[in-house]
Amino acid sequence: MVYKISKLMFENQLNIIENSEFVDPNSKQFFYRAVIDGDIDTSKLKKQLYDILPNANISVLMSQKKNIVLFCTKESHVLGDILISHFSGVLGANIVGVISNHNHLQSLVNKFDIPYHYISASGCSRDEHESKILDILSTYSYDYVVLAKYMRVLSPAFVSSFESSKIINIHHSFLPAFIGANPYKQAYDRGVKVIGATAHFVNDDLDEGPIIVQDVVGVNHTHSWQQMKQIGQLIETKVMSQSLSLVLDNRVFVSGNKTIIL
Amino acid sequence: MVYKISKLMFENQLNIIENSEFVDPNSKQFFYRAVIDGDIDTSKLKKQLYDILPNANISVLMSQKKNIVLFCTKESHVLGDILISHFSGVLGANIVGVISNHNHLQSLVNKFDIPYHYISASGCSRDEHESKILDILSTYSYDYVVLAKYMRVLSPAFVSSFESSKIINIHHSFLPAFIGANPYKQAYDRGVKVIGATAHFVNDDLDEGPIIVQDVVGVNHTHSWQQMKQIGQLIETKVMSQSLSLVLDNRVFVSGNKTIIL
Amino acid sequence: MVYKISKLMFENQLNIIENSEFVDPNSKQFFYRAVIDGDIDTSKLKKQLYDILPNANISVLMSQKKNIVLFCTKESHVLGDILISHFSGVLGANIVGVISNHNHLQSLVNKFDIPYHYISASGCSRDEHESKILDILSTYSYDYVVLAKYMRVLSPAFVSSFESSKIINIHHSFLPAFIGANPYKQAYDRGVKVIGATAHFVNDDLDEGPIIVQDVVGVNHTHSWQQMKQIGQLIETKVMSQSLSLVLDNRVFVSGNKTIIL
Amino acid sequence: MVYKISKLMFENQLNIIENSEFVDPNSKQFFYRAVIDGDIDTSKLKKQLYDILPNANISVLMSQKKNIVLFCTKESHVLGDILISHFSGVLGANIVGVISNHNHLQSLVNKFDIPYHYISASGCSRDEHESKILDILSTYSYDYVVLAKYMRVLSPAFVSSFESSKIINIHHSFLPAFIGANPYKQAYDRGVKVIGATAHFVNDDLDEGPIIVQDVVGVNHTHSWQQMKQIGQLIETKVMSQSLSLVLDNRVFVSGNKTIIL
Repeated sequence: MVYKISKLMFENQLNIIENSEFVDPNSKQFFYRAVIDGDIDTSKLKKQLYDILPNANISVLMSQKKNIVLFCTKESHVLGDILISHFSGVLGANIVGVISNHNHLQSLVNKFDIPYHYISASGCSRDEHESKILDILSTYSYDYVVLAKYMRVLSPAFVSSFESSKIINIHHSFLPAFIGANPYKQAYDRGVKVIGATAHFVNDDLDEGPIIVQDVVGVNHTHSWQQMKQIGQLIETKVMSQSLSLVLDNRVFVSGNKTIIL
Repeated sequence: MVYKISKLMFENQLNIIENSEFVDPNSKQFFYRAVIDGDIDTSKLKKQLYDILPNANISVLMSQKKNIVLFCTKESHVLGDILISHFSGVLGANIVGVISNHNHLQSLVNKFDIPYHYISASGCSRDEHESKILDILSTYSYDYVVLAKYMRVLSPAFVSSFESSKIINIHHSFLPAFIGANPYKQAYDRGVKVIGATAHFVNDDLDEGPIIVQDVVGVNHTHSWQQMKQIGQLIETKVMSQSLSLVLDNRVFVSGNKTIIL
Repeated sequence: MVYKISKLMFENQLNIIENSEFVDPNSKQFFYRAVIDGDIDTSKLKKQLYDILPNANISVLMSQKKNIVLFCTKESHVLGDILISHFSGVLGANIVGVISNHNHLQSLVNKFDIPYHYISASGCSRDEHESKILDILSTYSYDYVVLAKYMRVLSPAFVSSFESSKIINIHHSFLPAFIGANPYKQAYDRGVKVIGATAHFVNDDLDEGPIIVQDVVGVNHTHSWQQMKQIGQLIETKVMSQSLSLVLDNRVFVSGNKTIIL
Repeated sequence: MVYKISKLMFENQLNIIENSEFVDPNSKQFFYRAVIDGDIDTSKLKKQLYDILPNANISVLMSQKKNIVLFCTKESHVLGDILISHFSGVLGANIVGVISNHNHLQSLVNKFDIPYHYISASGCSRDEHESKILDILSTYSYDYVVLAKYMRVLSPAFVSSFESSKIINIHHSFLPAFIGANPYKQAYDRGVKVIGATAHFVNDDLDEGPIIVQDVVGVNHTHSWQQMKQIGQLIETKVMSQSLSLVLDNRVFVSGNKTIIL
């Protein structure tokens, strides 16, 4: 397969400047990622690839910036970090708009000349609220929805209206897990010694999709739950940044409920 | 309080060579640990301390090695690490005996001239099995029971027959948690990116006692579940080693369901 | 000592809501930090403290925001993170101004209505350049100078014109260290498996002052040096954020060339 | 290339059950590792592989245990961990013998029925001492020499008498590095916040060969240098264990001064 692909690239006078592969021993699926340099006709190349690999799932992507829409609520740490990366040109994406159920972060977003859509959830049902969000989204062309600490649960119907692996979420993670209000207070009361964060795709269930990046940071008995929360936000910011970098660089493949990162 | 203690030590011509304190902002409890050098009469000193601090929970401990009993099943990584620390004199404890529901590790333990009690669980009820274990334990004088990958669940009755915070356990930890058989296979199938371990005291519920040490190590899609298990064992070994070092050095205080480590 | 302090607070009807201490076993110095609630007359309290502890080094600080001046060059990751924390009110400091030897980040800083002083180093000697910077600094009242990836070496004369532990720096750290141009390229060529960052006070020598926070992140052979640099920037941002949080919360004490963090 | 290899395996009725590749973008070298199941004639297969890949560097290795010789001095933590892994059958190697410049660990090694060669360095020059070691080594058939905290510097002549990448070493690593006696004391005096370990191949210079695994653990101002040393030993043990596991599983390829781990 790699041979066939290499041969095709050579015949098209294209240069493979980076490639990597992984064979999933369980699914027997073959994952292959190549970065190609040259004068590329993407639709022609895709057709040629399907000719030699008729059963493959092939994407030919130009190294152009993706478009993303950000969702946020009140916390600025993840959103702000993405805005700064966007400003400095290292994000690998254009932020086409921000949608929020609160107006707390409007002035921050507006500093970067990015549209901010405040869609209050008060006085409307979850369906109505999500319907308003979908209306706004329909006015944009975007590749990913990034939940930058969006603190409302999305309905399964909302999620299923998107293609698979198009919504990226970040959430705190503890050992053990804590369910319910103020998990940092619960983690403090439980005396946990590490605090973590998980970035993942949202498919059916909000916190259950394929994991992209996980990381933790140590805490101890001297940390108040407020300090734990602050430390947790640092690791959330870092983990989301790493995840976006990988996803926007087309390095993340989904296989079942797992990610393959090439 | 610190003043009163210091004054008493001075009057007894004792030297405080290390001390640390922590005030738990929730319980308002004051935790204090001092290492004292000099010609100490422990029972007299304890009495004097109670005179000045009548409501305190006071332990005066000689810096002598503790006695521990190890429980194991078939896996040697945690047990073996403790045996090596014991051999090299850095454990801070005498291993007075090893109790196991299997005989797999008997030859290893015997190399170190430590008694090994193989108490098979087959053909007897959990109560009968635990009763046999308690009979063996009653022949020993010990400070801690260390579950070095003991893979049978202990009954609440068994646990409650011990003083609080006398049993130390180690278990793997994942984000999220996995319940049931072969958690490494489940973690692999879920595509987790970190694998962790938690050492804790066993009070009522086996995996719910005060946490002593937690740590994680990164994994990725190229690791098989067998490799994940091997990596998990490394982190279990390290976390248990750190925990024992802290506990045997009298640094770990329990406050509610948390540990204060001074 | 703790007794004397507690007694004084009680007599002043002040409430100690958080305190911690550390006795440095080498220097025999006693470090004590308390957070006090109540109607405080700081100069009177300081005088009273000196009466009972005449030889101590005492600071009585109101929990008001510090003033900081940021230095930057071209990279936005550390500066941007601090700006976002400032905007969201969690920084614990006012950014009174930004000084840079380049104008790359002027538009970013101006979004947050913070003065930006572009002081080019071209066409002037290091002394002249630093003299211009000191002129600008003299127009501000500030508690700390934060080098947010300021890429020019500061002269010993410049550094010694500040009080001790008033300048905070962040730099990448590798195992082993790499000296000279493009350390990420060197680290890549050397095949390092972790990339780190160190935040520290700048006293005499630029990279040698008391360390505040250090952390690392794993890398492997698949990462290009550009990816390593990007990952290094994530850890620099996180480490500086943690350091500022600790310093601005008055938790960092300097003892010799070390920090005590209470 | 992968195609040619796959075709050959198919013709030989061999099954590729695991494979991975990496193209070094700098050296343009292609690294390929496959685990093959079936009735293999290794010399015939190697010849066939050279026929289709005449310029490659090909190894065909049976999944049989390697033979290793361990070097140690007085510290037991790394040696002991390897002995336990050996005992429990997870090491992937036979320990054919242990060589030491001291006799401290003889009784430990003998428990595992492994020959221990005490070759004192006192009263002889470094050349004479190394010559005695080489004499002992010449009586063994071994794949790797593992320096399990061997605390004598090996001469360049000694090292160069081995094939490249046949000696594996572990050493502590700090940010910054410390040269000279008692690095833990120096690290303590410097107030470092992380302590690390590096496992690497020894080629010319003792601490400069290709890095296999690196890791760190956090420390703080409350740790004495003795505690730092103990924590450092934990991370040394873990890093060497991971490295041996990778090397003995034939996963570590050397490219220039770097490792590619497949």
